[in-house]
Amino acid sequence: MRSLNVALDERAYDIHIGRGLIDRGDLFASVLKRKRAVVISNEVVAPLYASRVLAALDSVGVAHQLVVLPDGEIHKDWPTLNLIFDALLGARVERSTTLIALGGGVIGDMVGFAAATYQRGVPFIQVPTTLLSQVDSSVGGKTAINHPLGKNMIGAFYQPKLVLADIDTLDTLPDRELKAGLAEVIKYGLIRDREFFDWLEINMPRLLARDTEALAFAIERSCRNKAEVVIEDETEAGVRAHLNLGHTFGHAIETGLGYGEWLHGEAVAAGTLMAAELSRRLGWLNDADVARIRRIHDAAGLALRGPKMGVERYLELMSHDKKVEAGKLRLVLLKRIGEATVFGDAPVADIAASIERCCGDA
Amino acid sequence: MRSLNVALDERAYDIHIGRGLIDRGDLFASVLKRKRAVVISNEVVAPLYASRVLAALDSVGVAHQLVVLPDGEIHKDWPTLNLIFDALLGARVERSTTLIALGGGVIGDMVGFAAATYQRGVPFIQVPTTLLSQVDSSVGGKTAINHPLGKNMIGAFYQPKLVLADIDTLDTLPDRELKAGLAEVIKYGLIRDREFFDWLEINMPRLLARDTEALAFAIERSCRNKAEVVIEDETEAGVRAHLNLGHTFGHAIETGLGYGEWLHGEAVAAGTLMAAELSRRLGWLNDADVARIRRIHDAAGLALRGPKMGVERYLELMSHDKKVEAGKLRLVLLKRIGEATVFGDAPVADIAASIERCCGDA
Repeated sequence: MRSLNVALDERAYDIHIGRGLIDRGDLFASVLKRKRAVVISNEVVAPLYASRVLAALDSVGVAHQLVVLPDGEIHKDWPTLNLIFDALLGARVERSTTLIALGGGVIGDMVGFAAATYQRGVPFIQVPTTLLSQVDSSVGGKTAINHPLGKNMIGAFYQPKLVLADIDTLDTLPDRELKAGLAEVIKYGLIRDREFFDWLEINMPRLLARDTEALAFAIERSCRNKAEVVIEDETEAGVRAHLNLGHTFGHAIETGLGYGEWLHGEAVAAGTLMAAELSRRLGWLNDADVARIRRIHDAAGLALRGPKMGVERYLELMSHDKKVEAGKLRLVLLKRIGEATVFGDAPVADIAASIERCCGDA
Repeated sequence: MRSLNVALDERAYDIHIGRGLIDRGDLFASVLKRKRAVVISNEVVAPLYASRVLAALDSVGVAHQLVVLPDGEIHKDWPTLNLIFDALLGARVERSTTLIALGGGVIGDMVGFAAATYQRGVPFIQVPTTLLSQVDSSVGGKTAINHPLGKNMIGAFYQPKLVLADIDTLDTLPDRELKAGLAEVIKYGLIRDREFFDWLEINMPRLLARDTEALAFAIERSCRNKAEVVIEDETEAGVRAHLNLGHTFGHAIETGLGYGEWLHGEAVAAGTLMAAELSRRLGWLNDADVARIRRIHDAAGLALRGPKMGVERYLELMSHDKKVEAGKLRLVLLKRIGEATVFGDAPVADIAASIERCCGDA
């Protein structure tokens, strides 16, 4: 088991990475305020792993119940969130009870937001079961639901008490989702960890083959990068925005096509290539850098082009981004591979040309 | 103008109390991140005071828009909260824009929760326009909406950047609401400020006559009490619970009758008399204390008895309280006038008898 700590003072917590962690009642029990927990999962993950989590809780005498939600980004909304509140209130769940999010990014974001707001805040544990949620969304305390006018528009910064990234749960992950998760892994290399980027160029086949050691290394390295950024800037006043490389373009794809059409990681990959192209136009990346970035995404089996929605539609959707300030679109771009920056002065013509070049049929 | 500061480190903020404050553009401008604000009010308060607030913002060059919600506790719910999100997203309101809550406790709680969760948090200002919100709900950062199964069950701790308690706005307050606000004023005397309780016994007629000096004193003294408690215990891990004297009984009344039938302060008053009766049964208060507590509520024109709902129904509704721990109802009771305590071991028979004695027709 690999472990690291997200050192946020009184909100600090551990991340454990390894196999068989969801069977470890001792790990769950170590952070519980009292011996009661509510496991919240979805109809895909619950049949696979909920019984193991409940058995682990039984083994340490923790009373529990299970709430199963519909699956998918399309359900990351208020009506589904309200199913959680209905279940908690119906069972008279108290402030001292811990919620356990068992699932991917949608479950983690939604259960995290439920924990942030149920009775003004109850403790919660993240048990991410997708590569994407293990390397990114389960760490750092961003929680949210979507609004028809924008992704993650309603949410809170609220840290979990523990993150258990169990590599066992990746065994049943569809290939498409594994690849989507790799987009966020590549991101850490691009924005702040060139050495990791180099490692990924060599080891991508091992990750696609689900080699345990390679996965454990990549997950730990990703979480370390994420934790360092979050410790420096918990509420995204500055450097944390770098984690959104490719996300402004990517959110436009997700919102434009309707949530769930493209996976989040797939949209981020296409968005990252747009951001790379724009960085090249601004003179920061050269052709070879852009080619490397395309190649590593290709090696991960990710789409290299966004959907054809029309540049105007992209720009319109991007204008809703949370990083817009004083009407100005602020984009995360690359100074070079391994160094990101937030830039608000990219000419609209260059943004449009970058989208145009990276979307539609090749 | 009287002023005090809620010293919560980087979340510290000022409370100003006086007349004509909503015309003071300089006060608003002093806490704005950038010159844009969204004023959110309801259909009763907006026609009375919104134009003054907007003119004040104009006078210091702050761009603004106004959102008007339906009025009443019955609208402190998700659909109404979502009207705020729709308006903010429709107008592409950014993270750096400040929300201004202009209204009573419902508007303050709901706009505060919108500010806590819109794009994971934007700044907001409280402009409470009822006595109850000026002395209580606008201070301390408790925000929430109701759920059909319980009051304030979904919310967050989220502090405003400024509170402007303008006594002008009390001029149009209906008598019934003024009296309801006095219930929360009396509360501070009961739980921690015996000297203030003594002052209230003498000055209640001046408050009912809306004497400016008496109101300013009572509001400031209440806010000071509240600020001291909040500074000591921001997230209600301990002493902050004392502010809920009468509230567990009171919430049962509000939920049981349907939100809006009884005003919050009216329900709190009846609940406080139940808590006083229970405190007497536990041997902490004597008959003379209980009589004084009844007298001061009577002098404020408040109902002395809760509605006849049946003791079982009261107990059932109270069991949803946020202070329930390990299945045990924890009640705020009085050791003596001026000193509260949280007590989890009151015999159910005594709780039931206290409700019985203080509800239904006399």
